[in-house]
Amino acid sequence: MSEQLAKIAINGAGPVGALLAVMLAKKGYSIDLFESRPDSRKTNIYQGKSINLALSDRGWKALQAIGIDEQIRQQAIPMYCRIMHDEQGQLTKLPYGKDNQAIWSVSRSGINEQLIDLAEQEQKVDIHFDHRLNQLNFEDNTAVYLTDGHHQVIHQSDLVIGADGAFSKVRRLMQELPKERISYSLEYMPQSYIELTIAASEDGSHKLEKNALHIWPRKDFMLIALPNVDGSFTCTLFMNHQGEISFSSLTDAQQVDAFFQRYFSDAMPMLEDPVNDFLSKSASPLCLVHIYPWLVNNSVALIGDAAHAMVPFYGQGMNCGFEDCRILAELVELHDHQWPKILDAYQEERKDNCDAIIELAKRNFVEMSDLSGEASFLLRKKIEAKFHQMHPELWVPLYSMVTFSPELPYKKALACGDIQNEIMAEIMRLPNIENDWQQDYVYQHMYQLAQQKLAPLGDQ
Amino acid sequence: MSEQLAKIAINGAGPVGALLAVMLAKKGYSIDLFESRPDSRKTNIYQGKSINLALSDRGWKALQAIGIDEQIRQQAIPMYCRIMHDEQGQLTKLPYGKDNQAIWSVSRSGINEQLIDLAEQEQKVDIHFDHRLNQLNFEDNTAVYLTDGHHQVIHQSDLVIGADGAFSKVRRLMQELPKERISYSLEYMPQSYIELTIAASEDGSHKLEKNALHIWPRKDFMLIALPNVDGSFTCTLFMNHQGEISFSSLTDAQQVDAFFQRYFSDAMPMLEDPVNDFLSKSASPLCLVHIYPWLVNNSVALIGDAAHAMVPFYGQGMNCGFEDCRILAELVELHDHQWPKILDAYQEERKDNCDAIIELAKRNFVEMSDLSGEASFLLRKKIEAKFHQMHPELWVPLYSMVTFSPELPYKKALACGDIQNEIMAEIMRLPNIENDWQQDYVYQHMYQLAQQKLAPLGDQ
Repeated sequence: MSEQLAKIAINGAGPVGALLAVMLAKKGYSIDLFESRPDSRKTNIYQGKSINLALSDRGWKALQAIGIDEQIRQQAIPMYCRIMHDEQGQLTKLPYGKDNQAIWSVSRSGINEQLIDLAEQEQKVDIHFDHRLNQLNFEDNTAVYLTDGHHQVIHQSDLVIGADGAFSKVRRLMQELPKERISYSLEYMPQSYIELTIAASEDGSHKLEKNALHIWPRKDFMLIALPNVDGSFTCTLFMNHQGEISFSSLTDAQQVDAFFQRYFSDAMPMLEDPVNDFLSKSASPLCLVHIYPWLVNNSVALIGDAAHAMVPFYGQGMNCGFEDCRILAELVELHDHQWPKILDAYQEERKDNCDAIIELAKRNFVEMSDLSGEASFLLRKKIEAKFHQMHPELWVPLYSMVTFSPELPYKKALACGDIQNEIMAEIMRLPNIENDWQQDYVYQHMYQLAQQKLAPLGDQ
Repeated sequence: MSEQLAKIAINGAGPVGALLAVMLAKKGYSIDLFESRPDSRKTNIYQGKSINLALSDRGWKALQAIGIDEQIRQQAIPMYCRIMHDEQGQLTKLPYGKDNQAIWSVSRSGINEQLIDLAEQEQKVDIHFDHRLNQLNFEDNTAVYLTDGHHQVIHQSDLVIGADGAFSKVRRLMQELPKERISYSLEYMPQSYIELTIAASEDGSHKLEKNALHIWPRKDFMLIALPNVDGSFTCTLFMNHQGEISFSSLTDAQQVDAFFQRYFSDAMPMLEDPVNDFLSKSASPLCLVHIYPWLVNNSVALIGDAAHAMVPFYGQGMNCGFEDCRILAELVELHDHQWPKILDAYQEERKDNCDAIIELAKRNFVEMSDLSGEASFLLRKKIEAKFHQMHPELWVPLYSMVTFSPELPYKKALACGDIQNEIMAEIMRLPNIENDWQQDYVYQHMYQLAQQKLAPLGDQ
């Protein structure tokens, strides 16, 4: 590969691939963007599926870098807090951050189509739908695509990027190379998920508080709901694939109905035919993917889910992929278009950070499904929020570090979070903390601990 | 699959597959043992490669179960200690266990051929060499094998076992099943290895002490040597694949010669043409494999390296595979030939234990290559050995738990070892421990710590 390369092939026109195409075209490269599926703007390939994603500051920062954030925001709904629904239908509200901080509900297909529209407007981007990657020669970056399932198209480029998702074909082709020593792991979570729907009211309004992410935490399983601009909510039920209460154990309509009535009594009247949905949909698996290296021959690289698929419990999958794009684009400038350097620096910068967010996302299932229903957890959050207000330079809650601090690398958020956990375990063991939590001595003690354990991390 | 199955197909006639064939034939099953390679007893498929393995008590216990241990022992050499060679050629001897305890050097091809001879003597075992597994129907256990590279042979059985090693084809076919949720990881170590040789003296004797495993620990890399019955030693050089001192960085004869002269001065005159071997051989990778589940449809199962490939630094790969076979055979009796129960119990019993030995083996590179050259490590070993003699019921050194305690599950050895590490860290921090290590107070303190931390584990 020449150091000053000209032609880049990006595989996968999902949100990450489409954004990257726009970013690299703006840096002067000729981009071919290949997508195995048809153009979703012309054919309804989502088949009524309305997956929602939570866009937050890392994602916004990437969109802002090419000035398209306000355009995307038109179709996004801010969620300022989580609202927990207990079994009796009692609600508890917990802000995500400070007053004006929110995570934004967007439809996956909507943001994807907006980004494809933007890519199409770039003169230097050619989009090829219905092109399924079949072979890749890693010596000269010649790729073979199948169109109409059998017609072969051959395409050669200076750099090949795999932005083709959790089940990446580029990655699978890399793994088949006999001489590369590619470490890889695919880990299935015990949980699977199905999507359910709460339709809009007849007047088009939302049936639940609109500007919130709703959670029905039931320990081993949970239901969540994210608002859509049309007044509906997209809900996701996460539960074990096998075991006592699981997708495998609930098999007839009566059981499933009883299950929803018992655990989701307030949601039940709003959900659209959940029993039928439950029985007719096959639950999707949740998995984590780690791979290393992300590069082959300095001319094929992975990005987004292809490099680091995670579970959705921190709402960071797309945000992390967008951050990959932003960092890569920044490195293009920093290393003045010298690609071997850019790619090495990209991998070096991103690998550990993406490992960190994969780990954080995995842990967050317990936080969402179990802890968020517990009084002690809510108390801990209140103490942290109060201390954060007193000493914002010393203590930023982990959720805020991950979600609202795009300058802070994930890896550092994970390390700080682990120390915060130790400190909070000590604080929560204080006798009578339930009543004393607003007393000065609590925060003095916390200040001492934070000074001693957290401050050194800040200097690294 | 019927509960009382009749025909079992074992894929892979390596040591584990061959042993399992003998064991299950003795339980009354008809066994077809398939091997992709030709019969090594007739064609020299090892091409002069003389891989050595250390057989220890877990392996012996399995061989004993079918009464073939003494026969195998004829071709094995006991190694009672490690002998460390420092850069000046100074030797330090460290026993593996008590006086009569040894690990046994055997040639991989030799023990494999002995086990194949034994399998051949079993009336109920049919061995099929040159049969390469190509397809497997997991619904009815019909397998397609290729002979002569293209001739198809179809074989149906009640149970299919994959004993086909770290790059198992049975496992790869399992992973391709779309509906199974199979978690998998393949992790490459930074080190690779090549084999070197120290020939026998002209009179056929060993040039180094025969009844020992020799180690040249050099921190980031190491050389080891295991004795053969013909007077030679098989040596293995482990070093980083890439980096400052690595297989990739040493590329010309002068560099390599200087490397051997500097780091292995006493071995250099004995090694057979190491510079040429180093430059002409391509270094083999070291990797770990985890997979879960090990079973599909209760009629296809994995065993040995196919289920849990590990690195060689604890000398447990084959021992662990033999233990798999012994446990499986015991479960056949315990569950009275009820196969779904046998397989579930086998997976339940083995999975965590094999994860534990994979972890222990990975950690042991540092112990062998780095710590074994350090005075504090040797002192720690002496203190542990002394305390073990005083309180054998309370303290068995980790190496002995793994190697000489076949009744103790690997998982428990790992858990105990971690606590022992904590205790020893505290003991080694005692001021003046270098001089006081034989004083009573050291062992009184150690006894208190062990009572407090280790004794509860014994009750589990």
